[in-house]
Amino acid sequence: MLAMAETSTLGELASLVGGRLEGDPSLPIRGVAALGIAGPDQIALLAASRYRPDVPGSRAGALLVSTDLAAALQDGRPRVIVADPHAALIPLLARFHPAAPARAGIHPTAVLGRGVRLGSDVEVGAYVVLGEGAEVGDRARIGANSVVGRGCRVGADSLLHPQVTLYSGAVIGARVILHSGARIGSDGFGYAASSAGHAKIPQVGGCIIEDDVEIGANSCVDRGSIGDTVIGRGSKLDNLVHVAHNVRIGPHCVLTALVGIAGSTTVGTGVAFGGQSGAIGHLTIGDGAKVAAKSAIFQDVAPGTTVMGIPASDQGPMRRAFALFPRLPELFRRLRALEGRPGAREGLPPDEDEGGA
Amino acid sequence: MLAMAETSTLGELASLVGGRLEGDPSLPIRGVAALGIAGPDQIALLAASRYRPDVPGSRAGALLVSTDLAAALQDGRPRVIVADPHAALIPLLARFHPAAPARAGIHPTAVLGRGVRLGSDVEVGAYVVLGEGAEVGDRARIGANSVVGRGCRVGADSLLHPQVTLYSGAVIGARVILHSGARIGSDGFGYAASSAGHAKIPQVGGCIIEDDVEIGANSCVDRGSIGDTVIGRGSKLDNLVHVAHNVRIGPHCVLTALVGIAGSTTVGTGVAFGGQSGAIGHLTIGDGAKVAAKSAIFQDVAPGTTVMGIPASDQGPMRRAFALFPRLPELFRRLRALEGRPGAREGLPPDEDEGGA
Amino acid sequence: MLAMAETSTLGELASLVGGRLEGDPSLPIRGVAALGIAGPDQIALLAASRYRPDVPGSRAGALLVSTDLAAALQDGRPRVIVADPHAALIPLLARFHPAAPARAGIHPTAVLGRGVRLGSDVEVGAYVVLGEGAEVGDRARIGANSVVGRGCRVGADSLLHPQVTLYSGAVIGARVILHSGARIGSDGFGYAASSAGHAKIPQVGGCIIEDDVEIGANSCVDRGSIGDTVIGRGSKLDNLVHVAHNVRIGPHCVLTALVGIAGSTTVGTGVAFGGQSGAIGHLTIGDGAKVAAKSAIFQDVAPGTTVMGIPASDQGPMRRAFALFPRLPELFRRLRALEGRPGAREGLPPDEDEGGA
Repeated sequence: MLAMAETSTLGELASLVGGRLEGDPSLPIRGVAALGIAGPDQIALLAASRYRPDVPGSRAGALLVSTDLAAALQDGRPRVIVADPHAALIPLLARFHPAAPARAGIHPTAVLGRGVRLGSDVEVGAYVVLGEGAEVGDRARIGANSVVGRGCRVGADSLLHPQVTLYSGAVIGARVILHSGARIGSDGFGYAASSAGHAKIPQVGGCIIEDDVEIGANSCVDRGSIGDTVIGRGSKLDNLVHVAHNVRIGPHCVLTALVGIAGSTTVGTGVAFGGQSGAIGHLTIGDGAKVAAKSAIFQDVAPGTTVMGIPASDQGPMRRAFALFPRLPELFRRLRALEGRPGAREGLPPDEDEGGA
Repeated sequence: MLAMAETSTLGELASLVGGRLEGDPSLPIRGVAALGIAGPDQIALLAASRYRPDVPGSRAGALLVSTDLAAALQDGRPRVIVADPHAALIPLLARFHPAAPARAGIHPTAVLGRGVRLGSDVEVGAYVVLGEGAEVGDRARIGANSVVGRGCRVGADSLLHPQVTLYSGAVIGARVILHSGARIGSDGFGYAASSAGHAKIPQVGGCIIEDDVEIGANSCVDRGSIGDTVIGRGSKLDNLVHVAHNVRIGPHCVLTALVGIAGSTTVGTGVAFGGQSGAIGHLTIGDGAKVAAKSAIFQDVAPGTTVMGIPASDQGPMRRAFALFPRLPELFRRLRALEGRPGAREGLPPDEDEGGA
Repeated sequence: MLAMAETSTLGELASLVGGRLEGDPSLPIRGVAALGIAGPDQIALLAASRYRPDVPGSRAGALLVSTDLAAALQDGRPRVIVADPHAALIPLLARFHPAAPARAGIHPTAVLGRGVRLGSDVEVGAYVVLGEGAEVGDRARIGANSVVGRGCRVGADSLLHPQVTLYSGAVIGARVILHSGARIGSDGFGYAASSAGHAKIPQVGGCIIEDDVEIGANSCVDRGSIGDTVIGRGSKLDNLVHVAHNVRIGPHCVLTALVGIAGSTTVGTGVAFGGQSGAIGHLTIGDGAKVAAKSAIFQDVAPGTTVMGIPASDQGPMRRAFALFPRLPELFRRLRALEGRPGAREGLPPDEDEGGA
């Protein structure tokens, strides 16, 4: 926990989040916590109905609750009511957990190549290596042991956590966050196959991470083969995500952990990929599409559609098909009955037969 | 290979593993190897019936064999019979491959922040960065190029391989092993969505790795948003595993490679996840549950159950359904025959039709 | 972009790639680009029919086109016609994007253990740690912040990008490329389970990466438990791939991103794994097999077969079954009609019923 010893009144907090206060505005609050562990000097979040049963037993001094849940809530505690409790968490947590103070400066162990250009108030950690001609914008921070290749650009206010690698020429926008172990601009997976094996095709394209992107720990975004790989403005990638060469992810997309997008696929604006889902290459996935966890996209996805399954298709029919799938054995049984041979087996080994007959 | 030139007699080894010896106790043995490559001075493992056909051709001088396989084994070689040959490997391998001697000491290149506290006989490798106030317990070892954030605690006898990252405040128990590239306490994937995009919710919770946990190469365990993420005592995570914010993994769980557990899911005691399986968020997975490889858990799992599939459900019906799945085309054909239109096609493109009619 | 200001004539380029030139041989060409962004001084690739619609609007000065696409192409531009445009890219891109000049030398910050042996013209980057007795072959390059364990061998002309880890004893062949964050020789995932938990089985085997292998960013290849893990000559692993202990990957295999191969599985020659596919342990996958993206192999695969699905089986029937899968609800409806109860429901909650009745 990064808890600090700040104290606010509930009234100040309600005002901070633009919420409606019901209860004593002078109640002292020292932090935000989950319902199950909050104490009398903490405000607890109630944002989903699944956590309503935890309310009565909670020791929280106050609740931060959504408008729709507040109406039916039988609880006498002070509460702050907001439209979106998750959005309200942002100023609340910033109040109780102020960011560590910036420590501009270049650690004496950092190795700077020729022609490196650093903006003002840049922080470069221990054992960082900045390649020739790399540029780092104002107030950007480069975590310990990170390696920034030659000719890279890192925009203002961006944060590279420790042990990030930027391959040569990678371009990182402003206010980007790259978590530890992120690899940006690594070679795409491109070979010319012949009877002699796979000959490597030079990967000479760019890798562009636009403003306000966040990329999770140990995620990889390959450079283009020719042309660029692009992660659009404001998109968020979770941990262990793979984006192949020449993929173009539009703005404001969400790629959850362990997602893989194969080469040259184009993803529109505001697309959401659930965990462990993926798409093969050379596809177009339309704006606002949603991809269920674990799905595999093998063909283009129309804008605004929600798809699931392997291969992924429209959620509606797929959900019904998934619900019926475990009943395949029953289906075979009913079919056999209609065929007038209810006792027949289907030729499978006993433990894989339909359990029927 | 880390092979050393130790020599033991077979009698010593039988005694070491508490096994029953059949054959010459004075046979000299210099190592353990697989059946296929073991030589006359090595003992070979026979722990699964699938490897029985390799026995006659093996040059191994002796066999380490399980009680149940020993009975039917037609082989005249000396043998050591034990209930669990894998467990017996532990003292055997320790005998032939003693661990490298500890080298307590702080490498002169290590960067120690203010207030760092080190126990006795700690080993800190080259280019390690220890943040302010970090504590490292007795005999713990921190591999080269690792970064330990401010306020972290690493318990006694723990081992961080090279290039591990602990984000600030991470708490690592005793006898924990973190493999290279493991990222502990990285930010959870939490945003408040609005028409303007996704605003980052500060991730201020803790990340607790309890005693005797092992975490594989390049695996990621996010810190909690508010509250903690916990990996329970004795649990083992393979490579490239993702554990999201506020997940609680109970003691003695096994998460195989490429598993992903989404936010706030609670996993009980002794749960086993097969490779590439996953669970969505806010679920409860009961004690002793087993999740087949590649499965996706979309709802709570009862204690003691084995589930498989996407979405995962009870293994029994799912196995039968999976076995029947490739026969869907036949099912449509038989249905058509009953409907009295055996020659009809189902409106699919020819190569995707059921091959029927 | 790594673009350089080289200029060639189209005639020189046709000759360089062994292609047939149609058009002005003196046309100056300064680079290779995708159809959509190429300018008049660039040659654009047309290797797949799906990109033919981009030809008319392209500003490219010339086209590099495959023999089979060239015949039907209505376009008056100069063109170079080759059998395999991807293979032709290799010399073309080398012409326009010459590799950065080698910079043999040992960075003064590199830490070399006792008995390290370095070949001629080796490059060792900043903050590299080479363990005792490690050997690095001629012209090999070790990227910044990489850690090479004791007793490792790295072959001639191999390239380790920054932040690679080789665990002790790993053997890397010649002309191998290891991308940033690759972990080679990490402990396999082996435990002896008992009521007291999981006891670690020492992982003392080797990890051998043969000549001409390329391993993507953040991929992991575990060492053997006893015996070796082997990646065969010329095989290519994409990003975030997991190869478990004692796996043997034959020569010239392709493992796409996020693939996982469980312990002791043997993969033949020239096997291709699509993205996010996997195999459980102790299997044999035959030469030339192809595994569709997202598939899970639960049993041996015969040589030359193409498999897909979970569990994976022959592609032909599986493709037909996948195409029919979303029609399971219809199947139940038709069955009910035959049974004389068309209006019955199947006992599912309304939104998961078959939409039938």
